[in-house]
Amino acid sequence: MSFLKRIALFLSLFSLVLAEGNSNLKPFQRPLILEYPERIEPNVKQGCTDEIQLQCTGWRFAVEANNISPWKSIPAECADYVKDYLTGRGYEVELERVSNEAGIYARNVELNGDGKDVWIFDIDETLLSNLPYYAEHNYGLELFDSVEFDKWVEKGTAPAIQSSLKLYKEVLRLGFKVVLLTGRSERHRSVTVENLIRAGFQDYDKLILRGSEDHGKTATKYKSEKRSEMEAEGYRIMGNSGDQWSDLLGSSISKRSFKLPNPMYYIP
Amino acid sequence: MSFLKRIALFLSLFSLVLAEGNSNLKPFQRPLILEYPERIEPNVKQGCTDEIQLQCTGWRFAVEANNISPWKSIPAECADYVKDYLTGRGYEVELERVSNEAGIYARNVELNGDGKDVWIFDIDETLLSNLPYYAEHNYGLELFDSVEFDKWVEKGTAPAIQSSLKLYKEVLRLGFKVVLLTGRSERHRSVTVENLIRAGFQDYDKLILRGSEDHGKTATKYKSEKRSEMEAEGYRIMGNSGDQWSDLLGSSISKRSFKLPNPMYYIP
Repeated sequence: MSFLKRIALFLSLFSLVLAEGNSNLKPFQRPLILEYPERIEPNVKQGCTDEIQLQCTGWRFAVEANNISPWKSIPAECADYVKDYLTGRGYEVELERVSNEAGIYARNVELNGDGKDVWIFDIDETLLSNLPYYAEHNYGLELFDSVEFDKWVEKGTAPAIQSSLKLYKEVLRLGFKVVLLTGRSERHRSVTVENLIRAGFQDYDKLILRGSEDHGKTATKYKSEKRSEMEAEGYRIMGNSGDQWSDLLGSSISKRSFKLPNPMYYIP
Repeated sequence: MSFLKRIALFLSLFSLVLAEGNSNLKPFQRPLILEYPERIEPNVKQGCTDEIQLQCTGWRFAVEANNISPWKSIPAECADYVKDYLTGRGYEVELERVSNEAGIYARNVELNGDGKDVWIFDIDETLLSNLPYYAEHNYGLELFDSVEFDKWVEKGTAPAIQSSLKLYKEVLRLGFKVVLLTGRSERHRSVTVENLIRAGFQDYDKLILRGSEDHGKTATKYKSEKRSEMEAEGYRIMGNSGDQWSDLLGSSISKRSFKLPNPMYYIP
């Protein structure tokens, strides 16, 4: 097969994968990571590898800028790219940058001093990392298995994202009220609290988990409602850190939002 | 200098540049691109080049995810990276992807049929490309010169971004009303209309430029007000394409927004 034909084939497969990922615009509960049968092996030709690098970087940009919404799957061609990104320095560098930017902003906020200035943090892939779990499950390429994932959550051993821990401590030191707003269920409250303590996250003001009335709502709706309740209680939401756009968008949006990278899954 | 020291020096310079870029949180009228005197020459060592690639990709992600806001300057270390991205295939690939995603969404929108479903497009770096201008001005690294830029605008020769032209035609074909909402001034109306026609953009419903009452407003405020007026007139804003977050955020936000890449400048 000529080089140009290879590129053409790759591009058409890529479009197919994307079209598949977007044709169903209905929201879904949890990330569904589908494995596609057809894959082009990288390293066949340098040109082809470069093309995959280019396309997968483009895909990741589209994810982080919220241009693909919802998405169901990592394009199969990008499996190695995503793994290399997460296990190499790229992910760490970007996590550090978003925390640094948030810190710069936090230090410039003039706090009112009445204890009503709030910083919201999501938990999974924001404060705590589930990478040890995803490392065992092909970094998000496998079909999402809620039973297996719950077993992991119940171990309570997810490590801290170090740059987030640094920001967390700084935000507390500056005098913000810290609210943790997570899609985890109320039934995981105690194991979550234990995991947070073990990872160094203490002294938060409130931990909000999904109650029975919140099940079946999209994260965007559930989190918007909780933010709206905070505002009704007189809190001002000054900062919000999350790895999903559904942590940040909707109503009662924070004055500034900080999007942590996450190329593994999408929650609507 | 040892390799590790080089990296450490680079990282500290990098932090400095970022801190500088963010210490002033006041909004400003136009992008200010400052040139920093200190630069580390790339290609000294492969490791160093890789580190620059990693850091500049991270910087660009932070820009596209709206984590750096406002930013005044391309980090000087990323000047070559940004030029390579814009003149290589990376920019083109990402522009195509955002248009493709927007097209997939547009085809899935159920139009009401009353002619009130609107798609908004920004102009500069969204429909028309100013790359020929920026190529003459170091791709945004030079201090922004409004007099020189106005001369370029008045030529009326900015080319179409081809992938945006394709989306534009599709959106029209599907039956959306198309509104162009630009930060350009009313005094540039006729040259803008001529440029748009020359580049293939016709049959839009409305072209909104900054009137005298809009000068001094941030783009976010000006564009939010104009969207709000559209809603008051009974229009439903279903899609919005822009290269700046200030095209997309604020109030009366579109049902879906599409962020085109732009690592050259930031408009608040």
